Amino acid sequence: MRIVDWAGDDEGGPAVVLLDQRALPERTEHLFLRGVDELVAAIRSLAVRGAPSLGIAGAFGVALAAHLHGTATPVAVAAVGDAAQRIATARPTAVGLELGVRRALDALGGGPAAVLAEARAVAADAARVNDAATVRAADLVQGLCPDRPLRALTVCNTGPLATGAGGTALGAILRLHERGALAEALACETRPLLQGARLTVWELAAAGAPHRLCVDSAGPAAIASGLVDVVFAGADRIAANGDVANKIGTYMLACAAARSGIPFLVVAPEETIDPHTATGADIVVEERGADEVREHGGVLRTLAGTPVYNPAFDVTPFELVTAVVTESRAWSPAPSAAAGRSVAAPR
Amino acid sequence: MRIVDWAGDDEGGPAVVLLDQRALPERTEHLFLRGVDELVAAIRSLAVRGAPSLGIAGAFGVALAAHLHGTATPVAVAAVGDAAQRIATARPTAVGLELGVRRALDALGGGPAAVLAEARAVAADAARVNDAATVRAADLVQGLCPDRPLRALTVCNTGPLATGAGGTALGAILRLHERGALAEALACETRPLLQGARLTVWELAAAGAPHRLCVDSAGPAAIASGLVDVVFAGADRIAANGDVANKIGTYMLACAAARSGIPFLVVAPEETIDPHTATGADIVVEERGADEVREHGGVLRTLAGTPVYNPAFDVTPFELVTAVVTESRAWSPAPSAAAGRSVAAPR
Repeated sequence: MRIVDWAGDDEGGPAVVLLDQRALPERTEHLFLRGVDELVAAIRSLAVRGAPSLGIAGAFGVALAAHLHGTATPVAVAAVGDAAQRIATARPTAVGLELGVRRALDALGGGPAAVLAEARAVAADAARVNDAATVRAADLVQGLCPDRPLRALTVCNTGPLATGAGGTALGAILRLHERGALAEALACETRPLLQGARLTVWELAAAGAPHRLCVDSAGPAAIASGLVDVVFAGADRIAANGDVANKIGTYMLACAAARSGIPFLVVAPEETIDPHTATGADIVVEERGADEVREHGGVLRTLAGTPVYNPAFDVTPFELVTAVVTESRAWSPAPSAAAGRSVAAPR
Repeated sequence: MRIVDWAGDDEGGPAVVLLDQRALPERTEHLFLRGVDELVAAIRSLAVRGAPSLGIAGAFGVALAAHLHGTATPVAVAAVGDAAQRIATARPTAVGLELGVRRALDALGGGPAAVLAEARAVAADAARVNDAATVRAADLVQGLCPDRPLRALTVCNTGPLATGAGGTALGAILRLHERGALAEALACETRPLLQGARLTVWELAAAGAPHRLCVDSAGPAAIASGLVDVVFAGADRIAANGDVANKIGTYMLACAAARSGIPFLVVAPEETIDPHTATGADIVVEERGADEVREHGGVLRTLAGTPVYNPAFDVTPFELVTAVVTESRAWSPAPSAAAGRSVAAPR
């Protein structure tokens, strides 16, 4: 499945190809974006999402601009630079987007072909990073829970749609499935925006992986009921001390996993670990709009104007994490913290 | 606000009056049910819900039948008995409904006025039980967290709509508000059926109590972020050892409250404690239909036919409960279990 790609010569000339995530799961539609304005609009409206996917889309976007304007004159270079700036700022807080744009732009001296080659390298690097982390995560959990197919729980969407490559937390679950080691994936629907119901279920079904969907609050109950062997979560940012900021709902799964004594693994690229954020307490939690909570399927389901608390993510203390698994290591709390964790799981 | 009541002589003669909970929060409409068939249909379609509210509605329903048929002849008594049977079985698993019908029916020998008096006694008893429990719960939490207005978190709907009287967990929050001791009530929306968004928000707004709505997974995060002083939950059934079965999502709030060291109070009538259920492990968790999870606001938001895990409630071990508060006592775990609880809250 093409998620973020470049149109081949047989597809009508230069274009960024996106799987339109707004249409999922009802329709599987690809966008062929032949202009920078179209690409910026697609990024703004979440046709593509997830930091690594955005980075790849941004790099291909610079390649598109280089093909449209050329790079032979100062005027052309200025036009490409202007396009790159517009792409990089299409979503102001998406660091991955800016990183991808920057890498492609740095190749501008080599001409349009060099820019495209660098964009392809961004995509290849994302795939390599995902593959290494998901192999390590799958190996780790199979070592912790040997000799049986596993029941894995996850939240939000951290599969190929989010990374443009193999995925992180959901990627590890898909890898267990490839190995014949997945008994069931339980997907939390992930209110308010339903990335679990809309995207994770779609990716699990596409892979033929056995799965069920549940409301978010059923995740901790499933763990307590003995229906889950391992929890996999992604990360938006990881503090220097190991505290993990991720989609709202991650913390409660970590609490429940610790109480039931099952592994809680965070799978993320090494670059997610932010040395400039000392602890989870230093992470400012973004609050999003009230209508996301007031409405279901576009229908108001509470009193109009009801005040809302809508944090986009939460912070899981490192002591509740079995390991943060990246492309280069599995990072676990020191034994003293791990001891604290086992005390917190008395059942 | 009339939730379950009897029509006065100035309201057109004998009728059961129900606040139509299907129309909330959009519309506040009362039904005047002048026939038993109408009442049965209203109960079946959830115009009234919650075990205590159903019990009161059932008792008034028997009074309605007694007024319609009289009680002077064997034929009339048989007709009232038949009506009572249809009302009691309108929802087969609602024990409260059957209890209310039985009490009213036992007064049949005294004539229609006696049946109506007994139905009013059922309502009065519900009110007395609620009042005693919510006073005790509010006193308890104000003792635990003295000298400041409190931020209280709750799940599902456990207010007057559910009990036909003062409510249980939400009743305790409303009592804190009456005392000027409520800084904010945070209501979890309570997927899949949104009793929090639809009913709890409506009751808090009607009382003028400061409140915010959140998705369920934001509840544990709010606790961990220091935004909550106390959690109040109701109970569907309490095992003899104190384990609490309640709406799905209760367990995760108890886990988070224990980790953060804040009180987690269960408010319920004494009759909720079931001596025939030894522990939470003996409680069979009902699984409900898949479309409740697949759909939002009546709109499919995942792949059609997606397999679903949809437990209606979860079980919170007594060791995570600060106290079960009823009309007659506050029941807390023994000190050894309480010690285990404090170990689980290391932060």
